[in-house]
Amino acid sequence: MENKIIKTIPEAIKASGLKSGMTISFHHHLRNGDYLLNMVLDACAKMKIKNLTVCASSIFDCHEPLIGHIKKGVVTGLECSYMSKVVGQEIARGILKKPVIFRTHGSRPGDIARGKMKIDVAFIGAPTADTMGNCTGKHGKSRFGSIGYAYADAEYAKKSIVVTDNLVEYPLSDASITEDKIDFVVPVKAIGDPEKIVSGTTAITRDPVRLRMAQMAVKCIEAAGLMKDGLSFQTGAGGATLAVAVYLKEKMLKEGIVGSYILGGITSYSLDLQREGCFKSLIDVQSFDTASAADIATNPNHIEVSGLQYGSAVAKSSCMATLDTAMLGATEVDVNFNVNVHTDSNGNIMGGSGGHTDIAEQCKMDIIITPLFRNRLPMIKDRVTTISTKGKYIDVIITERGVAVNENVAKPNAIKNLKQKFIRAGIPVVDIRDLKKMAEDICGKPKPAPRGKKIVANVLGHSGEHVDYIYNIPK
Amino acid sequence: MENKIIKTIPEAIKASGLKSGMTISFHHHLRNGDYLLNMVLDACAKMKIKNLTVCASSIFDCHEPLIGHIKKGVVTGLECSYMSKVVGQEIARGILKKPVIFRTHGSRPGDIARGKMKIDVAFIGAPTADTMGNCTGKHGKSRFGSIGYAYADAEYAKKSIVVTDNLVEYPLSDASITEDKIDFVVPVKAIGDPEKIVSGTTAITRDPVRLRMAQMAVKCIEAAGLMKDGLSFQTGAGGATLAVAVYLKEKMLKEGIVGSYILGGITSYSLDLQREGCFKSLIDVQSFDTASAADIATNPNHIEVSGLQYGSAVAKSSCMATLDTAMLGATEVDVNFNVNVHTDSNGNIMGGSGGHTDIAEQCKMDIIITPLFRNRLPMIKDRVTTISTKGKYIDVIITERGVAVNENVAKPNAIKNLKQKFIRAGIPVVDIRDLKKMAEDICGKPKPAPRGKKIVANVLGHSGEHVDYIYNIPK
Repeated sequence: MENKIIKTIPEAIKASGLKSGMTISFHHHLRNGDYLLNMVLDACAKMKIKNLTVCASSIFDCHEPLIGHIKKGVVTGLECSYMSKVVGQEIARGILKKPVIFRTHGSRPGDIARGKMKIDVAFIGAPTADTMGNCTGKHGKSRFGSIGYAYADAEYAKKSIVVTDNLVEYPLSDASITEDKIDFVVPVKAIGDPEKIVSGTTAITRDPVRLRMAQMAVKCIEAAGLMKDGLSFQTGAGGATLAVAVYLKEKMLKEGIVGSYILGGITSYSLDLQREGCFKSLIDVQSFDTASAADIATNPNHIEVSGLQYGSAVAKSSCMATLDTAMLGATEVDVNFNVNVHTDSNGNIMGGSGGHTDIAEQCKMDIIITPLFRNRLPMIKDRVTTISTKGKYIDVIITERGVAVNENVAKPNAIKNLKQKFIRAGIPVVDIRDLKKMAEDICGKPKPAPRGKKIVANVLGHSGEHVDYIYNIPK
Repeated sequence: MENKIIKTIPEAIKASGLKSGMTISFHHHLRNGDYLLNMVLDACAKMKIKNLTVCASSIFDCHEPLIGHIKKGVVTGLECSYMSKVVGQEIARGILKKPVIFRTHGSRPGDIARGKMKIDVAFIGAPTADTMGNCTGKHGKSRFGSIGYAYADAEYAKKSIVVTDNLVEYPLSDASITEDKIDFVVPVKAIGDPEKIVSGTTAITRDPVRLRMAQMAVKCIEAAGLMKDGLSFQTGAGGATLAVAVYLKEKMLKEGIVGSYILGGITSYSLDLQREGCFKSLIDVQSFDTASAADIATNPNHIEVSGLQYGSAVAKSSCMATLDTAMLGATEVDVNFNVNVHTDSNGNIMGGSGGHTDIAEQCKMDIIITPLFRNRLPMIKDRVTTISTKGKYIDVIITERGVAVNENVAKPNAIKNLKQKFIRAGIPVVDIRDLKKMAEDICGKPKPAPRGKKIVANVLGHSGEHVDYIYNIPK
C-alpha cells in the first residue's frame, strides 16, 4: 500500500462497502460551515443508497438538505448531541419515523466505545491529512482546531474515511487522528467554511441585564469558596455565560489568582484569560472560533482532548471529573431545577445537551444563567417542555431577580451548604418558586407547548440512560 | 474524584484487584535500566500473589530477579517480544512450565487490541505524569522519549496503573497516554536509570569488515532504485546496521537526496541524518538513547507513534506499509533465507523478533547484514536453530564474501528483478549455498545446537501466526 487516496466521495463510499440500511457518522467541528455531511448524503442519494442512519455529533442549519434526504427515505435514522432549528423544527413536526436519539457530547463517544452505537462508515472532515490518513484540525485553510469529537468515530467505525482539502506528504508531524485508524483519504476542494464556526451563540452579550447576571455568577464562584489558585472553569457558547469570563478575568487579575484550566468549547475569551495568566491551560474538545483554532496549533498549553477524555462516563476519568465550576445555558428551567436545552417553549427542537448534561453531573458547581422571561415568555416553569439535564445535577440558577440554589443536588462532588454560603456572602438567594411567580406575575402563566402523541426524539443522559422524550408538534 | 494517586505499589496492586493467576503487563522503554518490573514482582511476591503471567514487551538482563520469581511460582507465564540472555538462558533450560510466547513489536499490540492477549493490570512506568494519569516519556529525570509500546496496554488492560518519578500538576500539556485510560497513579523515587537505555547493541561498529558490509548495504539501496527523494529507511540497534546510517548520510548529502522518514528505534545516528536534512521526519516507537529521548520533546518532526501504528497487522495501516528499506540483524540465517534472532547457535535464548519480522514482511527491501562466521561458528546454515522471520520475507543478505539475493521472496511490496539489478550495478551477488560452503570450508560444518524435547517458547509472527518452537537445552 503506497497511499490510501480515493479520488472522489462516491468512489470512497463504494470502496467502504456502504449500503442501504447502514449507519454513517460525522463530526461537527466546522459547525454551521460544514460541507461534508451534505456532500456525502447527496452522493448517497445519487447512488440510490437509502435507509441510512446519520450519526452526527451535531446538526446545524447548514444541514438543511438533510430534510429533503429524510423526506426521500435516504435518511431514516438520526442520532446527534445537538440540532439547531432549521432541521429541528421539521423533526418536531414528525418527518422522521423513528425518534431521533439525542446523546450528550460525553455519552456519544462513550456509547461508540462500548459498542452501543455502531458506526459502519465514519466520514471525518480534516483540514489537513497526509496520504495515509494521519490528520489534524490544526492546519490548513479550513482549520477548526481541536478534532476532539471525531476520535471515537475514527477508532471504532468499521470503515473510516478522511476527507480533506489540504492533502500533505506523509508523514504529517502532529496528527491528532492516526493512520492506524483510517481506511481511505479523499481530497476535495473544500470541506467547509471556517468563518462559520462562530455562530450567534459565541458572541458576547451587550445586554446590561445579562451582564449583571454574569457579574453575579462571579460572586457565586467566590461565595462557594472556589475563587482561589487552581480554579478550573468551563463556560459554554452563550452570550451571558461568555460574559462571565470577562468579569472572572477582572477579579482574578485584581486578586492575583492563578487558575488551573479552562475546559471547553474554547473561545477567544478563554484564550484571553490564559494569555493574561489567569489560567495555566486550555483543555479543548472543540474550538469555537478561528482564533482558538489558530491558537491550538502553536500554544503548548492549549491541549486537544478527545470526546471520551472530555466528558465520557465510560472513560476511566474525564476532564470534567476535576472541574470546579461551569456556566451553562437553558431555554427553560423548572421549579425542580430541571433544565431544557433541547426545545423552545413551543416544542420546537433547537438545541441539545451538547456537554451540558455531562458537565452538570460532574462538576462541583454548575450555574445556569437565564433571564426570568424572554419575549414575554416565562423561563421558569412548573415542568420544562423537555428535560435535558435533571434537576438533581443543577446547583445554581441565576436570574436578574435573584439566585436560586438547589438544596436537593445529588452528585458526589457537590459543594456543601451552598445556600448558607451564598446568603452569608450577601447573594440575593430566592426560592425558585418565587422566581417562577415573579415571572408569571409579569407575563402570565404560560400555556404548555402544543404536544402530539408521537415521540420524535429520545433524550439520553451522561451515562446513556433515558432522560426524557420529545413529542411532535401537532399540525 | 480529585486525583488518582495511590501512595505505594502494594496499595495500587490491592486497589487494582490483582490476584493470583492474572496477567500483568510492562513496557520496556527503559530497556536495561528498568526498575518497575522488579518492583512490582517483588511486591506481588510479598503479597503472596502467585501464578502470574508477565506480559512484558521485552525482558532485559536487569530483570534477573524474574528468574527467582519463576522458580518460586510467583510467575508461571511469560509473554514478550524480546528476551536478553540472563533470563533467556534460564528459560532455555526449562525453568518455566509453560512455553514463553514470543510475539513481535507489531503483533503484541495487535493481539492486545483484538483481545487475543488479555491484560488484567498494566503497569506503565512514566517519567512524567499528572495527578489524573496523563503521562509521557518526554520529560522528567527518567525520560526515555517515545512511550509507543505502552499505548495498547493502557488502552486495553482492565486496570492501568501509571508509576512515575515525576508527578506534576494536572493537566499535563503534552500527554502521550491520557487520563481516560488510567485508573491509578503511583509516585515512586525512581522508575529506572535512563543511562542504561543505550545497550551494547546501539553502539556503532569499528570493525572494518562490518563497515565494508555497511557500505555494501548503501550500494544495494542504490541498485534497487530506492536512492531517491522520498526514501524511507529503518535501521535497528546493531553495530553494523547502524553504520549503514553513516554511509547513507554521506551518499545522500553528496547527491542532494532528501528522504522522507526514518522509522524505528531512533538513535542519535537517526537524529544526525534528520538534522543534516537527509530525512524530513523521524517516526519513533522507541528512543534508543538519551539524545533521542531529549530530541522528541522539542523537535516537531520527531513523531511519536504507538506500537499499533508502528507495525501492527491489525491496524488499518502501519508506518511500515510505506517503508522502503530496513537494515536488520541476525544471529543465524539459512539457505532458505530464514533468519534467527531468538537463539544463538547453542540454543540459548538471547533475543527476539522485536520489530524484525514485522519490518521484513512489510518493507520493500530488507537487508540482513551478517558476517559469514562469528567465533569460528558459521552464520549461514542448512536450517537456523530457530526461525524468527521466515525466508520468504527476507530480500537480501550481505556478508563480507558476497551478497545473497532471495529470488523466492513472497510479499506484495517486493522489488522486482532485484538480483538482475544488483548484478547490473556490480554488486557481488553470490548464491546463498555458496556462502554457506565458504563458511564451512573455513570453520567446518557446525554441529546442530543441543536440543531437548520440551518446548520452551512458541514464536509467533507479524499477524500472530505460529512460526516456530524453541526447545530446551538438555542438562
